[in-house]
Amino acid sequence: MQIAEATSTTISLSPVGIVESDVYPSRIRILDDCAEALDGLSIGDNLWVLYWMHRLDPDDRTLLRVHARGDISRPKRGVFAVRTQLRPNPIGPTKVALVRVESTMLWVEGLGAKPGSPVLDFQP
Amino acid sequence: MQIAEATSTTISLSPVGIVESDVYPSRIRILDDCAEALDGLSIGDNLWVLYWMHRLDPDDRTLLRVHARGDISRPKRGVFAVRTQLRPNPIGPTKVALVRVESTMLWVEGLGAKPGSPVLDFQP
Repeated sequence: MQIAEATSTTISLSPVGIVESDVYPSRIRILDDCAEALDGLSIGDNLWVLYWMHRLDPDDRTLLRVHARGDISRPKRGVFAVRTQLRPNPIGPTKVALVRVESTMLWVEGLGAKPGSPVLDFQP
Repeated sequence: MQIAEATSTTISLSPVGIVESDVYPSRIRILDDCAEALDGLSIGDNLWVLYWMHRLDPDDRTLLRVHARGDISRPKRGVFAVRTQLRPNPIGPTKVALVRVESTMLWVEGLGAKPGSPVLDFQP
């Protein structure tokens, strides 16, 4: 793949679940179609959750330099150097601990995702 | 967002760069349009790179249980419990060290991405 191709490539993701509650511990519902992918997970497992920051305005994905923590007294920096949700591809990888499972419902500690956030993946 | 909506949501990503070489250290070219997002990065920074595992057959994204490391002597497990590229959304978050920068070309240590892999994000 050349750079010109990369520019024009669009990648499509399909959610595997959704954050239903951010009341501690966060509750995630896995889509029925993806239930089998949970096989082998155990309470206490530490996992990476990848989720989509769905509340971001699409226009904010075009910002390339921002004030860290929205603090305008700080100089703007490139988004690759800043922890911000304002990113071209607003995916949040977050380390969580699995504390409860009931069928396709998972409860995890450590997730900062808002309710309604599409979940993209769990990785050990 | 309800579960029915999540099922039908499609999320579109646009690459911000591309892996050009996996000869150590890996070389990544950032798209000219995204160059400003690099502002503030320094040699020696530890970063998360998110990249798309582009070589995966689209059919492999539908697999939900696999043999770990492709070893058929092991029982199949859900992909959320296994380190495998065979995932519904094959995104690889990888911790790297930035060792060299020249304009929009970055060299990083620790990236296992194949040449041609679209890069989606860098996060501190």
